[in-house]
Amino acid sequence: MIFKSVLIYGFGFMGSSLSLALQRAHKEIHITAIIRKESLKKEILENGLANEVILESNFKNNWKEFQVVIFGTPVSRISELVSNIQDIGDTIFTDMGSTKRTIIEAVRTNNALQKNYISSHPMCGSEKSGPFFADADLYSGKLVFLTESGSTLYETKETIKEFWESIGSWTLNVSPQVHDEALAYISHLPHILSTILVDLSVKQNSVSEIGQKSTKPITGGGFRDMSRIAGSNPEMWLAIFNENRDFVIQALRDFQNELDFVLHLIQKWDSESKQKLNDYWNNALDRKKEIRKE
Amino acid sequence: MIFKSVLIYGFGFMGSSLSLALQRAHKEIHITAIIRKESLKKEILENGLANEVILESNFKNNWKEFQVVIFGTPVSRISELVSNIQDIGDTIFTDMGSTKRTIIEAVRTNNALQKNYISSHPMCGSEKSGPFFADADLYSGKLVFLTESGSTLYETKETIKEFWESIGSWTLNVSPQVHDEALAYISHLPHILSTILVDLSVKQNSVSEIGQKSTKPITGGGFRDMSRIAGSNPEMWLAIFNENRDFVIQALRDFQNELDFVLHLIQKWDSESKQKLNDYWNNALDRKKEIRKE
Repeated sequence: MIFKSVLIYGFGFMGSSLSLALQRAHKEIHITAIIRKESLKKEILENGLANEVILESNFKNNWKEFQVVIFGTPVSRISELVSNIQDIGDTIFTDMGSTKRTIIEAVRTNNALQKNYISSHPMCGSEKSGPFFADADLYSGKLVFLTESGSTLYETKETIKEFWESIGSWTLNVSPQVHDEALAYISHLPHILSTILVDLSVKQNSVSEIGQKSTKPITGGGFRDMSRIAGSNPEMWLAIFNENRDFVIQALRDFQNELDFVLHLIQKWDSESKQKLNDYWNNALDRKKEIRKE
Repeated sequence: MIFKSVLIYGFGFMGSSLSLALQRAHKEIHITAIIRKESLKKEILENGLANEVILESNFKNNWKEFQVVIFGTPVSRISELVSNIQDIGDTIFTDMGSTKRTIIEAVRTNNALQKNYISSHPMCGSEKSGPFFADADLYSGKLVFLTESGSTLYETKETIKEFWESIGSWTLNVSPQVHDEALAYISHLPHILSTILVDLSVKQNSVSEIGQKSTKPITGGGFRDMSRIAGSNPEMWLAIFNENRDFVIQALRDFQNELDFVLHLIQKWDSESKQKLNDYWNNALDRKKEIRKE
């Protein structure tokens, strides 16, 4: 399929990277970016990040003039927008929101929209934000979760699948419920754990004593990996917790219970508990290979 | 300083990698490896991993014939060995143990040894084990913690500092107590958290449902980093927990308390708790930059 005109509504790191990837894959594509802050307009155009830039407050809701519309705003704003869209013609809609239930609920309230809507979640988060970090390779080889409204047409599904595949991503269909629960465990929980680990460890006197003696990092590869995502982008993460609060709480409680179990075994430390820890470790190794497909 | 004869006592991944690094840095060095399993001897010699291989049971305790002796066995075995070493001549001793208190306590019971002993901990762990993964670059650019016995001579300190620097490592002096507490937070705790995260997330139905649909990994970069060290080498890790159990328990309890605090804020979710979470995230970001020297 040839993509000729795409509207990217919300032009941060994800949106601008998408624009570069689309421009590279489709030579004659016309990308329109909707932005909030006038101040970004000049630089976006000068750097060729989009062909046209419209300030959100000036946007005329001429949805049907675009082949594909993709929302790159926070989930709460996506939900607000999709509830009110009218007069869509043949335009196909999607988004890049990190949680799915609230978006799909909002889409389902809009009869005109739901056939032409499928929600996307590209798994390529980053600590970066803003259009000037835009990376044309961001989506290459990355998974994009696709979530249907329930009334999504076959053409809509195929168009958005091809859209992502045209820039090197691959897709997987998943329900809103399964998506949001799974993401609580494989994405939201890890961000919280990393943040607590960094807060806790760096405030220890022993750690800061060693750290202050050194001009280079004192930590090994394990800590480096485990701390990379700590504390990133609080505004975005608070918005994600807000949308997925029930599953985030469930994941944190589950983690507490398993942590209690492991702590109990280390406290007891008899031959039975050592055996259980050993089994627990081996089991985690198997599960790691399973999920990482190693 | 020219290193001519080194005994590496315990020839796993760390010991064999050290041997390759020393051979590259010191053309005329003679490396003797002490191994436990006869079966490894032929391959070690054929692959040039060491110049000479002695089975542990055949070793004649001729310590004083070596310039430097370095222990690459588990900590409990190092402690056993150093308690009994006699007739050392001018030989300088060190080790690569992951915890320091038990080793230093054992060294202090041995008057003949303690002046010539300084304990080392190179921060270059790996999921790999065994001599056939040996990597000559393992120590390049890596930090090695050095821990004195209290009676360690100046010559001993300088020799071992030069020993590590000759293969591209850098060193930092730290007391046994500070070392073991700091390592509980920056190394042992992260390994436990990663293991629990993998166990917990992969057993969720939602996660396994998605995982089974896919031939490729479904997880993003955050989970990939946070799961890398999960479940690795249970035998080694149980030995480390054994040596450092008090600080590991302390670190796990501290983590529990902070997790409770974060969970409480997410449950409450009023404007005050959101502000506190936001502050917590920003603070963790500052601390991350501090410890990673970013």
